[in-house]
Amino acid sequence: MGENIGIGIIGFGTVGSGTIRILQENRELIHSRTGLYLDVKRIAVLDLKTDRGIPIDPAVLTNDARALIADPEVDIVVELIGGYEPAATFIKEALAQGKYVVTANKALLATRGWELFEAANKSKATLAFEASVGGGIPILRSIREGLCANKFLSIHGILNGTANYILSRMSTSGMDFEDALKEAQQKGYAEVDPSFDVEGIDAAHKIAILSTMAFGVRIPFDAISIKGIRGISQLDVLHARELGLVIKLLAVGRWDDGELEIRVHPVMIPESHMLAKVNGVYNAIHVIGDFVGSTLYYGKGAGMLPTGSAVVSDIAAIARHLAKGDMYEIPPLGYPLEAFQDAVIRDAKEGRGVYYLRMKTVDRPGVLSKISGIFGEKGISLASVMQKGEGEEPVDIVMVTHETTQRQIDEALKSIDHLSVVMEPTLALHIEMDLK
Amino acid sequence: MGENIGIGIIGFGTVGSGTIRILQENRELIHSRTGLYLDVKRIAVLDLKTDRGIPIDPAVLTNDARALIADPEVDIVVELIGGYEPAATFIKEALAQGKYVVTANKALLATRGWELFEAANKSKATLAFEASVGGGIPILRSIREGLCANKFLSIHGILNGTANYILSRMSTSGMDFEDALKEAQQKGYAEVDPSFDVEGIDAAHKIAILSTMAFGVRIPFDAISIKGIRGISQLDVLHARELGLVIKLLAVGRWDDGELEIRVHPVMIPESHMLAKVNGVYNAIHVIGDFVGSTLYYGKGAGMLPTGSAVVSDIAAIARHLAKGDMYEIPPLGYPLEAFQDAVIRDAKEGRGVYYLRMKTVDRPGVLSKISGIFGEKGISLASVMQKGEGEEPVDIVMVTHETTQRQIDEALKSIDHLSVVMEPTLALHIEMDLK
Repeated sequence: MGENIGIGIIGFGTVGSGTIRILQENRELIHSRTGLYLDVKRIAVLDLKTDRGIPIDPAVLTNDARALIADPEVDIVVELIGGYEPAATFIKEALAQGKYVVTANKALLATRGWELFEAANKSKATLAFEASVGGGIPILRSIREGLCANKFLSIHGILNGTANYILSRMSTSGMDFEDALKEAQQKGYAEVDPSFDVEGIDAAHKIAILSTMAFGVRIPFDAISIKGIRGISQLDVLHARELGLVIKLLAVGRWDDGELEIRVHPVMIPESHMLAKVNGVYNAIHVIGDFVGSTLYYGKGAGMLPTGSAVVSDIAAIARHLAKGDMYEIPPLGYPLEAFQDAVIRDAKEGRGVYYLRMKTVDRPGVLSKISGIFGEKGISLASVMQKGEGEEPVDIVMVTHETTQRQIDEALKSIDHLSVVMEPTLALHIEMDLK
Repeated sequence: MGENIGIGIIGFGTVGSGTIRILQENRELIHSRTGLYLDVKRIAVLDLKTDRGIPIDPAVLTNDARALIADPEVDIVVELIGGYEPAATFIKEALAQGKYVVTANKALLATRGWELFEAANKSKATLAFEASVGGGIPILRSIREGLCANKFLSIHGILNGTANYILSRMSTSGMDFEDALKEAQQKGYAEVDPSFDVEGIDAAHKIAILSTMAFGVRIPFDAISIKGIRGISQLDVLHARELGLVIKLLAVGRWDDGELEIRVHPVMIPESHMLAKVNGVYNAIHVIGDFVGSTLYYGKGAGMLPTGSAVVSDIAAIARHLAKGDMYEIPPLGYPLEAFQDAVIRDAKEGRGVYYLRMKTVDRPGVLSKISGIFGEKGISLASVMQKGEGEEPVDIVMVTHETTQRQIDEALKSIDHLSVVMEPTLALHIEMDLK
């Protein structure tokens, strides 16, 4: 296939622009490493007229993605339109035609990945998706290849830069959630509708992909327990600090007693842990393998250029194979598809842990004893109870439990939040004092 | 070559034992990922009798490394004896016979790597060495593949766990250098003769390898400026803390104005930087690429199992190729050998920076003005001067300079350290306030 490899890119938005810019600006550098020129032969866009500020030969632009896929000059199809359809159809068509495919589409991979990986398996090509998790951090490659000697014990990731930016600003600048969110929106770090990011859905897509690869199991997306960061207040940040803790939105996949725990939720973690130091829009993934021990990977988890860097690394890896005319020897998910088993996923309600609880109540004698009584009835023992803001109303009551289950907490809070003296739903956060 | 790949291991010390243990204990896991069984067919040792606590068929042991290399059942030769000879000869012989080679030998690679890479280039095989830098951290793979779309701007690494352990203990426990070193020796983190580690040689080997790969240039090992951590005292740790800084032994490779700066030295860095949080025997490498921006890789930089994890990842990668009968398409150093150029390496003396200086003097009027005068004569301007321990003798004078060069500092200190009022050689440390 000679020295030139033809690239077709579907989608010319943020990541598409970053990818094209890198392919242009580092063209000679990539050639010096690989001996190959990566030529953008076709770019499929809905609107041919928008100026994206990147010099492009207009003849390269098309609004016919199918023609791009079928173009014999296109060896590698890069899907960067996002969403479920027509992205899935385009990817499958390209694979069916024996084209290699690169995508950054985490939502699609996490929810309908299996049909794509089966399509890749049937074709002689492969599906690469380093850009789908952790932006420019080469985390998938590290799990699949660099750490392939290990049984993975756990993954703890800060996988959403928007949520981490908000929590960082709440922690370092004393901002409230709403103000930090507004600032993130002004800076372009959060969407107008930030639900996917602040409610943990985006992080859940990413931990689904990571866990599938690391643990070699099928994970139905709806088996993941997901909680976001709405409802966390400045008070919680301050209480955490008093305990030597920091609040982070963690995406977790870990084995415990032969069952897989997989969840996204805000957690209080020790401020000395490496993950606690990850601020702003940065991502980090803490991976423990049985022999390598603790490792951590850190970088920008989003943005046109970091994500473009990951897309181009996949393109370059595939191009090297195409140039030699050999096949990809490493399956996209690290294991051959037939090796995958269904995971035994632990019901989130049975997850054990220590909880931080904050409730707003009227300031009246007997309230505390009533609440404590309910915890006692549900078998939850309390490690500490603090009442804040005495004499004001409402007062904040902050409690830390001993180890208990999510189910017990849910049951206790159902009773407590119905009490007339309790003025808003209680916030419950996991505390991971011994986070490995 | 079927389902079984034959491994021959030369050297059954710490890393050899770790490698063999992983190949045994995760044999089925690696098979489920790769479809291959990695069989240890031969282990060459000097002493056949030592019990290493690992169950081994005695028939596998040999003291004839050359026979191991020539054994047709051995597809991959793993060199884990360390040192220069006979390691280099064994590696070259194996490559000459078309065998794939895996090594963890950083000293050999850093000082005589070129002859090995040329031997690999001539053979149809390859030379893999992930374990030579950063223990189990997949840093070489990340630079060579995951970040291959980027021009690398800088690498800052904590690459020696022993030195980092000592500095961490000095910082967190108030220990002196000698006590921290003794503790490291008791725990098995430092050798009886710790020179290689505390004097920066080991870190220099590793930054030489990293920089060669990242920057695509030949680096003569003796062009690297190397300073160790002897001479750093508890006073310096405390002074650093007053300035919001932490002392770390950093291995640095970075471009500046078309010249490559490459050095190992203790540096004061802001305590908010991710590298400042890396404590104990852990390593971390902070890599900046032109498009990906800042990334960091963290993990255990030494030890039988983390290092064994890296060795086995290399073995598995090669085994996948052998099983398909295809050639390695990625050159070991990330660029083909012919793409390498000689680096223009900046004379360390011309390196610019801000310095922390600590001198011990008699407590006599005029001393400070005399010393300040010498700095003025050499064109060094001082940002701050503090005298500690007034009334005692000797007193400590701590100065922070504005930006200057190593040459100016060296010249000033030559004069100052000759003054009769100066009681021991002045300690000079770089301050990197704006460490990216």
